[in-house]
Amino acid sequence: MTAYYTLEWLNEGALRVLDQRLLPNQVAYLTLTDTAQVAEAIRNMTVRGAPAIGAAAAFGLALAAVHNPTTDLDEARKALHTAGKLLCDARPTAVNLFWAVNRMLDALDAGWIARVDELREAALMEAFRISAEDVETNRKIGENALSLLPNDEVTFIHHCNTGTLATVEYGTALGIIRTAHEAGRKVFVFVDETRPRLQGAKLTAWELTQLGIPYRLIVDGAAAYTMKTHHVDAVTVGCDRVAANGDTANKIGTYGLAIAARAHGVPFYIAAPTSTIDLCTPTGADIEIEERAAEEITNVGVERIAPEGCQVFNPAFDVTPAEYITAIITEMGVAYPPFTESLRALVNAARSSKRR
Amino acid sequence: MTAYYTLEWLNEGALRVLDQRLLPNQVAYLTLTDTAQVAEAIRNMTVRGAPAIGAAAAFGLALAAVHNPTTDLDEARKALHTAGKLLCDARPTAVNLFWAVNRMLDALDAGWIARVDELREAALMEAFRISAEDVETNRKIGENALSLLPNDEVTFIHHCNTGTLATVEYGTALGIIRTAHEAGRKVFVFVDETRPRLQGAKLTAWELTQLGIPYRLIVDGAAAYTMKTHHVDAVTVGCDRVAANGDTANKIGTYGLAIAARAHGVPFYIAAPTSTIDLCTPTGADIEIEERAAEEITNVGVERIAPEGCQVFNPAFDVTPAEYITAIITEMGVAYPPFTESLRALVNAARSSKRR
Repeated sequence: MTAYYTLEWLNEGALRVLDQRLLPNQVAYLTLTDTAQVAEAIRNMTVRGAPAIGAAAAFGLALAAVHNPTTDLDEARKALHTAGKLLCDARPTAVNLFWAVNRMLDALDAGWIARVDELREAALMEAFRISAEDVETNRKIGENALSLLPNDEVTFIHHCNTGTLATVEYGTALGIIRTAHEAGRKVFVFVDETRPRLQGAKLTAWELTQLGIPYRLIVDGAAAYTMKTHHVDAVTVGCDRVAANGDTANKIGTYGLAIAARAHGVPFYIAAPTSTIDLCTPTGADIEIEERAAEEITNVGVERIAPEGCQVFNPAFDVTPAEYITAIITEMGVAYPPFTESLRALVNAARSSKRR
Repeated sequence: MTAYYTLEWLNEGALRVLDQRLLPNQVAYLTLTDTAQVAEAIRNMTVRGAPAIGAAAAFGLALAAVHNPTTDLDEARKALHTAGKLLCDARPTAVNLFWAVNRMLDALDAGWIARVDELREAALMEAFRISAEDVETNRKIGENALSLLPNDEVTFIHHCNTGTLATVEYGTALGIIRTAHEAGRKVFVFVDETRPRLQGAKLTAWELTQLGIPYRLIVDGAAAYTMKTHHVDAVTVGCDRVAANGDTANKIGTYGLAIAARAHGVPFYIAAPTSTIDLCTPTGADIEIEERAAEEITNVGVERIAPEGCQVFNPAFDVTPAEYITAIITEMGVAYPPFTESLRALVNAARSSKRR
C-alpha cells in the first residue's frame, strides 16, 4: 500500500477522493456526498484515469442509492438510471465509465432485490466489488507483463499517469513498472511530462518519487531523441478505450510516441484491464475523442503562455492504430496481433471467470 | 516591416534587443553596451534563434571594437579575439554563432585596416552587412519555397519559432509561411507549443497574430494526431546546424515530428540559410547537443509542475536524420537528397556570390 489513495468510501455514506489537480504541491482530499459532485469531480479531473473514473462512478451510483429517502423500489431504480446518465455524460472517451455504470445498473436490476434497503446494500456491494477487482486486475497485469521484460535492467518510457492515482490502487502501465521494480529488476523510467495537463510531471513523477523508482522527466517532444540516444526496452502506456481490432484511445501524445517507438524498434505495450476493451467499438474511428478547453493549453496555473485570442486544437486523446502496438497486456493474459481474435478471447475468458 | 524588431544598433554604440523572455505578455527592449552583456543575452535566451544569435554576436563584437579605448591596433585585435571566444561559449549548438564570429574576425584581420578607428569602422560595417544579408536571405528562402507549395490552400505544422524574432527580420521557416500568405495563398498553421520553453506558444502564436495569419496552437504531442485528422500540406521548421550529409539539429521535438510526418506522407522541409550549413560537420553524430537547466522543465514561470528533487533529461535540440527530410530550402535554392552533393553545391554557390 502506498501512503496515499485515489478514493475511499466513508461509512457515513460519502466518497473521499484525492484532489489530483493540486499535486505534486499539495496532498488534499475532497469529500463528495452526491452523484452530481462525483460527476463534476470526473469532469473537472479531480479524479482521472480510466479505471479510477470507473470506480468513482460506481461509488457515485452507490451515493445515489444510499441517500435516496424513497421507500418505493421502482422510484429508487429510476433515480439510479438518472444518476447513471449524469455520470456517463461527464466524459465521453474512457469506456470504463460506461462499463462501471452499466455493471452497477445491471446488478441493481437483479431479481433478488425486493426492497429499497436491499437495493442500497446491492449498490454498495457492487461498487466495492468493482473497486476490489480493479486492484486485483492491476496486480495481474503487472505479473503478466514480467515475461515480456527479460532483462535484469529495464528502461521504460511512460506517458501520462497510469499509477495508483489512475486506478483504485497499484496502477496499470505504471503497475507494470512497479511490479518489475518489486521483482528486483533495475528499473529506470523516462517520464513524458504529458502536456497539456502534465499528468507525467505532476502525478507520475510524484508517484515514482514515493515508490523510490529512479526516473528522469522529459518533455513529450524529447521521447524520440531519448529512444535514439538511450537504450529503451519498452514504452508502456495505459488506455481509455481499446476497440475490437486493437486500435487504442489514450492520452494525447500516445500515437506519436508509438510511431517513434516503431521507428526505433522499441516494443510498445498497452496495459488494459479487460473492462477497457470495448468489443462493441469496431475500430478506433468509432471512438469519440473529447476536446477540452483552450485554457488547458494557453495557461499553466496562473501563467498565461499564449497571446490573447489564441485559438487552440485540444483533443484530450488520440487513437493509436493496432499496427503500432506490440502487445496489449490484460489481467487475463497478453493479447498479440491479430487483436481482433486475441482480444475477443481474453474478454470472453474474463466474462466466464466472473460467472464462475 | 513588423511593428517589433529583434535587434537594432543604436548610434551611441549600443545594441537594443527585444527581451523575448517576456513575450507574449510584454514587449520590452534591453540596451546592451558590452560584449559580456550580449553573450549573457544569448546564453539566457533574451535573444534566441540561430540567425538572430549570429547577428547579435556580430554586433557584440562591434561593441568590443567601438568601446575599446586603446589606440594600439594589435591590442585592439587581440581584444576582439577574446570577445569572440566569450560569445562562442554562450551556446554550443547553433553554428551561425561561430559562423558570424569567424566572419567578423576574418573581416577585422583584413590587410587594409591600419588604425584602430578603421578597425572600429570595419567591425560595424561587417555587423551591418551580416544583419542586412540575413533579411535578404530570409526573403529568398520564402520565394524559393513557393514552388514547393502548389495549392491555393496550404496548411502547415510549424515547430518552435523561426519568425522575425528568430532572425533579424522576416524569418526562415515562418518566413516561408509569411511569403505564402503575402502571395495570396490561404494559409493555415498548426503551431506546436514547443516545450520546454514554449517558443511556439509564446513567440510564433504572437507573431502569427501580428501578421493576421490564422492558426491553432497544439501541444507537441498532438502533432501526429493532427496529421491523421486534418489535411496537412507541409511541416516547416528551421535549424540550428545542418551537417554535410543533411542531418539537421533543431529544437527538441523536431525529430519526433519528422518521424510522424514520414508516417503520414507529409513533406518535411527545413528552412536553412547557407550560413547554418556546416560542411565541416560530417553527420549529425558530430553535433554537440546542449543540455539546459532542469528548471526549464520543472517550472513554468512561477508555477512548479514537478515534485521537489525531480531529475530531468533536458536536451535543447535533437538531430533529424537526413532520410526524414524532403528538402532543405536555402537562399541559394532548394537542396534535395542526396544532400551531401546538393548542400555542397549550394554552399559553394553562396561563397562565389559573396566573392563577386
